[in-house]
Amino acid sequence: MLILLQHCGRNLLTSRTIRAMNKTYYSSEMVKRVAVVLAGCGVYDGSEIHEASAVLVHLSRGGASVNMFAPNIDQMHVVDHLKGEPAPEKRNVLVESARLARGDIQDLSKLNAKDHDAVIFPGGFGAAKNLCTWAVQGKDCSVNDEVKATLQAFHSEGKPIGLCCISPVLAAKIFPGCEVTVGIENDNKYPDTSDTAAAIKQLGCKHVSKSVSESHVDEKNKLITTCAFMCKAPIHEIFDGIGSMVQDVLKRA
Amino acid sequence: MLILLQHCGRNLLTSRTIRAMNKTYYSSEMVKRVAVVLAGCGVYDGSEIHEASAVLVHLSRGGASVNMFAPNIDQMHVVDHLKGEPAPEKRNVLVESARLARGDIQDLSKLNAKDHDAVIFPGGFGAAKNLCTWAVQGKDCSVNDEVKATLQAFHSEGKPIGLCCISPVLAAKIFPGCEVTVGIENDNKYPDTSDTAAAIKQLGCKHVSKSVSESHVDEKNKLITTCAFMCKAPIHEIFDGIGSMVQDVLKRA
Repeated sequence: MLILLQHCGRNLLTSRTIRAMNKTYYSSEMVKRVAVVLAGCGVYDGSEIHEASAVLVHLSRGGASVNMFAPNIDQMHVVDHLKGEPAPEKRNVLVESARLARGDIQDLSKLNAKDHDAVIFPGGFGAAKNLCTWAVQGKDCSVNDEVKATLQAFHSEGKPIGLCCISPVLAAKIFPGCEVTVGIENDNKYPDTSDTAAAIKQLGCKHVSKSVSESHVDEKNKLITTCAFMCKAPIHEIFDGIGSMVQDVLKRA
Repeated sequence: MLILLQHCGRNLLTSRTIRAMNKTYYSSEMVKRVAVVLAGCGVYDGSEIHEASAVLVHLSRGGASVNMFAPNIDQMHVVDHLKGEPAPEKRNVLVESARLARGDIQDLSKLNAKDHDAVIFPGGFGAAKNLCTWAVQGKDCSVNDEVKATLQAFHSEGKPIGLCCISPVLAAKIFPGCEVTVGIENDNKYPDTSDTAAAIKQLGCKHVSKSVSESHVDEKNKLITTCAFMCKAPIHEIFDGIGSMVQDVLKRA
């Protein structure tokens, strides 16, 4: 493109102008740098695989550059996904998350909010078992220190935070008064939404009922949430809802 | 829809006509029943996660009903995806595949081609390590007996078989003379395609160079292939290429 401009504009374009154009064209104003924080690999003890994959596909289509991170800690436990029961073994959250990242992932302790324009947390039980203890303690849960520091850093810099499925409880725990969605309350298609929404309200936050295809934006806190697999929906509808969340994140990044 | 037709058509529609219409509307002519065969969970020792997820999203959007299967065998080995090295542990292909299937998966020995209109094999090293021994023996590989029986059953019934990434070597090994793609030969964006294509030709098959966004259809054998992660492409391009493959499978199912 620049070669064409140089040719057409002849001496009208100085090298300084070209450098400035290059900077605008390739700078972070154009390519959004997004951190994705994983929690393992598999819905029952890690990140929900299809949610994480959908986040990456939509970020890629949106032209974002992505860095993936996960805490270097043991999983709360390992679930045999065939039996749906805990298995007597140990796995590491960072090592298992590397499966989703095709090896290209870093320790969450290395994540610097200043190097990124936004952060996204896919869901799955891993978000409620490994990133915090919501799965066993509900609203009285504790949040992993690095996860908490990450959320606070992006929040204090006014950078958007995307969360889906059960991950919005992380925001509800850390940012009292914030608004999130985990689906539609009192609706059979969203079997776990009402209880989760009740706990979110007990934390002093607002729950906004949104369908699987929608995302909710808390403009004040720059939180963008969508319910994903909290809804019993065909997987392409969950994919599209995550697309809505990712687009809302990129618009504000 | 039928209520509306009954009302509009009054006595023109007999109950027999309505039953026949219902049958057409809800039968397998409308809802395609597709089997998806997995090989673990993770690119280096199992099914490539994003390929498998893309297959499921596109099948869902296409209105197909899906059953997932995997062989109940030990993985060839377990790869620590963070280090990119084998790890000293054992994992079972069916149990790990259940992570991708959110628990809803069956032993491959239970797969009956008569109950399905098509079958799809996502890629990843698991296809070349657990479903056959291509990763270590190339064209001289052996194919898992259940995988072989599955491919032969769908082929002999004239039902479409979709394969992506490295999985097309399964077809090349079992159906001499068939046509497949694993990407574009002699192109830097497709670093492993030329060697794989050479081995496919040594098996007496035809390799057709196709870009990551395209699928190749061997109409005679009803094989539909796309290169997916054999290409160094952004993940949304791989997602779209798999969409092309899935649509070509559903059209022929």
